[in-house]
Amino acid sequence: MKVIVDLCVVPMGVGVSVSKYVAECQKVLQEAGLEHQLHAYGTNVEGDWDDVFAAIKRCHERVHEMGAPRITTSIKVGTRTDREQSMKDKTESVYGIVPTENTLG
Amino acid sequence: MKVIVDLCVVPMGVGVSVSKYVAECQKVLQEAGLEHQLHAYGTNVEGDWDDVFAAIKRCHERVHEMGAPRITTSIKVGTRTDREQSMKDKTESVYGIVPTENTLG
Amino acid sequence: MKVIVDLCVVPMGVGVSVSKYVAECQKVLQEAGLEHQLHAYGTNVEGDWDDVFAAIKRCHERVHEMGAPRITTSIKVGTRTDREQSMKDKTESVYGIVPTENTLG
Amino acid sequence: MKVIVDLCVVPMGVGVSVSKYVAECQKVLQEAGLEHQLHAYGTNVEGDWDDVFAAIKRCHERVHEMGAPRITTSIKVGTRTDREQSMKDKTESVYGIVPTENTLG
Repeated sequence: MKVIVDLCVVPMGVGVSVSKYVAECQKVLQEAGLEHQLHAYGTNVEGDWDDVFAAIKRCHERVHEMGAPRITTSIKVGTRTDREQSMKDKTESVYGIVPTENTLG
Repeated sequence: MKVIVDLCVVPMGVGVSVSKYVAECQKVLQEAGLEHQLHAYGTNVEGDWDDVFAAIKRCHERVHEMGAPRITTSIKVGTRTDREQSMKDKTESVYGIVPTENTLG
Repeated sequence: MKVIVDLCVVPMGVGVSVSKYVAECQKVLQEAGLEHQLHAYGTNVEGDWDDVFAAIKRCHERVHEMGAPRITTSIKVGTRTDREQSMKDKTESVYGIVPTENTLG
Repeated sequence: MKVIVDLCVVPMGVGVSVSKYVAECQKVLQEAGLEHQLHAYGTNVEGDWDDVFAAIKRCHERVHEMGAPRITTSIKVGTRTDREQSMKDKTESVYGIVPTENTLG
């Protein structure tokens, strides 16, 4: 089962700055060979259900190993049986209607 | 790795009423033998990481089998290495500070 | 516009235990006179759109005043124009299909 | 109070394809003059708390006016008092650690 996921890992008990933990999760996704794209409030990930969720579990394991005693993660998961759809398809189907919109590059 | 999850499965393309799909997910959680509690905007689930996420995958499979062509699910996932904590512990630690608050039973 | 919300406020940079901040948010909801119910991974809130979101803003203000330098909050928001629905209606429509399910009281 | 938000509006009861509703929400954000950036599972928005939440309310109003009888929206909201931070700052602080990662343009 193919899945598109939005992932936001929040380590707790490690102070205010969490970018090194987020960067570690990017490395986990790279090592897993999963399509992914960071945005300002999470990371889009695309792949097979089992591969994506195995990587998310590894993110928790790694962030704990780095010293975070507590993690709260938000995940959005999309699946569909009517047709194939990639992350690029999703944004392009909106851009086709409002082509000029993004205010950030 | 022990996990506390909040799960909200939203079938798309099946009309406005989705309670039969939510009920099916409750059955999946029961069959998996996982601690769970329905609330007005999702279900809290507690268990081992692998068991909980296997059940979430089964929820997607079942809801697709029931005819929903598209599903978007929100998941919150909490893990911690500093101590054991149950779903009951989490609410009780708040009730210990504001004991009278709930306005709904 | 009537709204049912699920609210989860996560203070960052204050250590691992966040229950006093969550309890303060419960007080904000009480003071606002909003129907609300705490669960293990957030709080369901019901009311008029403007009242509910004014209370959520006050939660952020209070939690910052208590010393949290950073907050990340997850909100789910449901609105509908086809009929009135309360938080109780939502859970009861599922319980009508799987009446025995909850494993926690 | 400055806020960075991730917004994902899901119309229900309108079939499987929701891109025209998402596009309408992009227009609402443009009309409001808010910095925003679409990604594959939502839109990042940056601005003053009141402006951002007024725009989110207008998104619900517009999507209902377009005929959607029910909407379920996910919002992540970040505020901080320790320093100013933009959406670009957030991604760049991660890219500074893992500079090569994105697999999608």
